Amino acid sequence: MKNNKVISLAVIRRLPRYYRYLKDLLEKDINRISSSDLSALMNITASQIRQDLSNFGSFGQQGYGYNVEYLLNEIKRILNIDNSNNLIIIGIGNIGSAITKYINNQKNGMKIIGLFDKNKDVIGKGLEGFFVQDVETLPLFLKKNKVDMVALTIPSKNIKEITRLIVEHDVKGVWNFSSHDLDLPPNIVVENVNLSDDLMILNFRVNQIINKV
Amino acid sequence: MKNNKVISLAVIRRLPRYYRYLKDLLEKDINRISSSDLSALMNITASQIRQDLSNFGSFGQQGYGYNVEYLLNEIKRILNIDNSNNLIIIGIGNIGSAITKYINNQKNGMKIIGLFDKNKDVIGKGLEGFFVQDVETLPLFLKKNKVDMVALTIPSKNIKEITRLIVEHDVKGVWNFSSHDLDLPPNIVVENVNLSDDLMILNFRVNQIINKV
Repeated sequence: MKNNKVISLAVIRRLPRYYRYLKDLLEKDINRISSSDLSALMNITASQIRQDLSNFGSFGQQGYGYNVEYLLNEIKRILNIDNSNNLIIIGIGNIGSAITKYINNQKNGMKIIGLFDKNKDVIGKGLEGFFVQDVETLPLFLKKNKVDMVALTIPSKNIKEITRLIVEHDVKGVWNFSSHDLDLPPNIVVENVNLSDDLMILNFRVNQIINKV
Repeated sequence: MKNNKVISLAVIRRLPRYYRYLKDLLEKDINRISSSDLSALMNITASQIRQDLSNFGSFGQQGYGYNVEYLLNEIKRILNIDNSNNLIIIGIGNIGSAITKYINNQKNGMKIIGLFDKNKDVIGKGLEGFFVQDVETLPLFLKKNKVDMVALTIPSKNIKEITRLIVEHDVKGVWNFSSHDLDLPPNIVVENVNLSDDLMILNFRVNQIINKV
């Protein structure tokens, strides 16, 4: 096992997709698959698949193909899905509430340990077994608890103070729904979900099609 | 104005970001900005900015920089933000409900005209001025109404029937939250928001940082 090999982020970003397809195959009791069949299914080239998977040692066997369960378990191990990280969610509006429920239903290596908002109407509300806490108490909470990740679903005007706290309290990753580019040092990873940008792009592309027609 | 020039999708994907920054500048009463200042602000090279914006004719003037309002209006025009497309949302669970409220608050060229679900507990519920309709009535609705876009927030096992309807009824674009790769012809555009993949990737990257420390 090549545990210490550095895997590029581009490959990492493709792994959840392999994970989904392999899980699906296993649920259909398909236990082995050739790289060409997997290629047709996932709509990527067989050579890309072989190259991606060779990053983790060669799991495929000539004439046999891939063992689905073994490959799935290897990807789970690499993605470290079973290793829970502590997460808090800041901003319990529509998106924040949906994300809270979503994460609790997923159970993919995330453990919610706190919910925060600044809105007096929301503070104290119960959600998925938590009470929404006043964001004013966040500095104390961060001091007392190990928080690995923050999901940010707040308007961009409130972002500066929160990013300062994130840096100060050694948070490792941010799931950023704020439609604002975060100014964070490189040792803090960010995944952006920018619904506003997405909608504009989708609208543009749809208009392009309509105008072409 | 170069209306007929084909602009690459890579450039299009960057435009909402320009839009956000320029809107922000205008709200702060900043009316002109040099490409180098904009570059520092947005953390991309000045030459990238000049190249991106030259796609729409050259708006910058040597020694003057960009006129923020003019540039913002041009980007709005190109993105066609004021041109509403009709949208329906299929799947009014946590994410679907949040998206419904989100779109109604955004007013970025989308007009919700219907909400659908298959869950008897959800059908008939009022949300943002709509009653959630039974997904069984969707074929008739699609026949009677011009639906340009569909936001899909349903589990992947229900996806096949819905994608068939999308193709049949000439829907132009899909905002896909289903964590499932859609099998659609190339004349239908898709923007994927895969929260499950995102979380796995964020978790992996955070674990990488923790293990390095």
